[in-house]
Amino acid sequence: MAKILTGKEVAQAVTEEIKIDVEKLKEKNINPKLTIVRVGTNPSDLSYERGALKRMDKCGIKTKVVELNKEITQYEFTEKLKQINKDSNTHGILIFRPLPKQLREEEIKYIISPEKDVDCLSPLNVGKVTEGDVTGFPPATPLAVMEMLKYYEIDFEGKNAVVLGRSLVVGKPMAMLLLKENSTTTICHSRTKNLKRICRKADILVAAVGRARMVNDEYLSKDTVVMDVGINVDDNGNMCGDVDFELCKDKCEAITPVPRGVGSVTTSVLAKHVVKAAKLLNNL
Amino acid sequence: MAKILTGKEVAQAVTEEIKIDVEKLKEKNINPKLTIVRVGTNPSDLSYERGALKRMDKCGIKTKVVELNKEITQYEFTEKLKQINKDSNTHGILIFRPLPKQLREEEIKYIISPEKDVDCLSPLNVGKVTEGDVTGFPPATPLAVMEMLKYYEIDFEGKNAVVLGRSLVVGKPMAMLLLKENSTTTICHSRTKNLKRICRKADILVAAVGRARMVNDEYLSKDTVVMDVGINVDDNGNMCGDVDFELCKDKCEAITPVPRGVGSVTTSVLAKHVVKAAKLLNNL
Repeated sequence: MAKILTGKEVAQAVTEEIKIDVEKLKEKNINPKLTIVRVGTNPSDLSYERGALKRMDKCGIKTKVVELNKEITQYEFTEKLKQINKDSNTHGILIFRPLPKQLREEEIKYIISPEKDVDCLSPLNVGKVTEGDVTGFPPATPLAVMEMLKYYEIDFEGKNAVVLGRSLVVGKPMAMLLLKENSTTTICHSRTKNLKRICRKADILVAAVGRARMVNDEYLSKDTVVMDVGINVDDNGNMCGDVDFELCKDKCEAITPVPRGVGSVTTSVLAKHVVKAAKLLNNL
Repeated sequence: MAKILTGKEVAQAVTEEIKIDVEKLKEKNINPKLTIVRVGTNPSDLSYERGALKRMDKCGIKTKVVELNKEITQYEFTEKLKQINKDSNTHGILIFRPLPKQLREEEIKYIISPEKDVDCLSPLNVGKVTEGDVTGFPPATPLAVMEMLKYYEIDFEGKNAVVLGRSLVVGKPMAMLLLKENSTTTICHSRTKNLKRICRKADILVAAVGRARMVNDEYLSKDTVVMDVGINVDDNGNMCGDVDFELCKDKCEAITPVPRGVGSVTTSVLAKHVVKAAKLLNNL
């Protein structure tokens, strides 16, 4: 039986650190605040929002939700965003994506203030993550994976890390974060040949493809640490990851479940970013 | 005997393309121009500069060299750079690096106009390369590798590409460019374990470590295409690559020599970027 890497303890540990930081900021009259921008009422946005609000509250971070009509025009949206950029009480801004069709993310990503862009929408933050610049804000999910690997004391040094998926929200930044920790990093994707063989060579395997239970035990060796980033709903309406947990849990070194794995840590990472933004904006 | 991939033909082919583009721009009264900023008189800067000036001339691109005293202060440098940013006749800016110690590249990279930053100094361009945004300017060397691979019709699709080195000027952008062409991409570095074994699995091996003749025939299979990005000087004062050409040339599918390989293509890529910048700046 593999070691089951659950997210709860990690989220708790990160939260405890943040609380101390927030207390210190409050002594300086700085009250970290996250403003969430949500267009419409997508159930998965609402679900993440509830979790985020709860986490911020636990950390002592203030929040504001700006709910916008799903018919909002590009002009109205960008004007609103510029207002939030300017709001000196807001330190972090999270915009739920994907945005409705009439909103052009390609323009919006250049409008959000990079200093408040805690979810790595701005190309400048994408650049900082690639540079390894610590003032940047890597996306929450890959950073949550890193927090988990560190909490569970998984060794990175010179290890083979294989990332399944090359998206800008997980795959690519994940590779950059692993590289920074001295892992030898491979990015695989839909066009990869001999995928199973490559994955079997992984010491750390991060699955971020968005396909329910795609990764089975043929992708693993007994030494693999499997980090499952997928959040899918199967044919029976059950939430599941990109990894077939039941098939894999006896065939590897360690594995994260879905739910209760990586996903449980993302709001803590977000909270950490808000605190970091509050510090940087105040030159601390 | 491996196929020897020389750069000259590639540079020539790229130059021919550029000449046509430049003619079209001139018909619209747009005269593409590169401004080179050089601090001091470093011999390798001067050597690259000569090659670049010659290439721009062949392409019909105007040039200006701004030579600055090596004692120049940060303030003087940034004021000068701001002037060049504003010069509407300049479409591309190349700043030789590394800069002398008193100049802070960490600040300068935020000052250069991203629209004219043809050598990928700005974090915004680093971000665009990671995003795969075609309006960005990937660094010249990895892009020269891509031009060579395409010219010699090397197949990328699903192939294993291994990049040796994780620098911001070669390794990381190289990985992003290969990934965009659907290669399965691995980044290795000084901490990588089993380096030779990993390299032997490569269909395409890009060496960018800056160590004279480090890569020998033990890193190759007979099917490997070896792209040598290194420019080193050996103990006898001879220029050589990161790959031991003599040892490797009979042991792989194809290989670039040093000199006369990838390095011969970088100024053409730079010229291409100047033309692209001129187009984008004029909304073409």
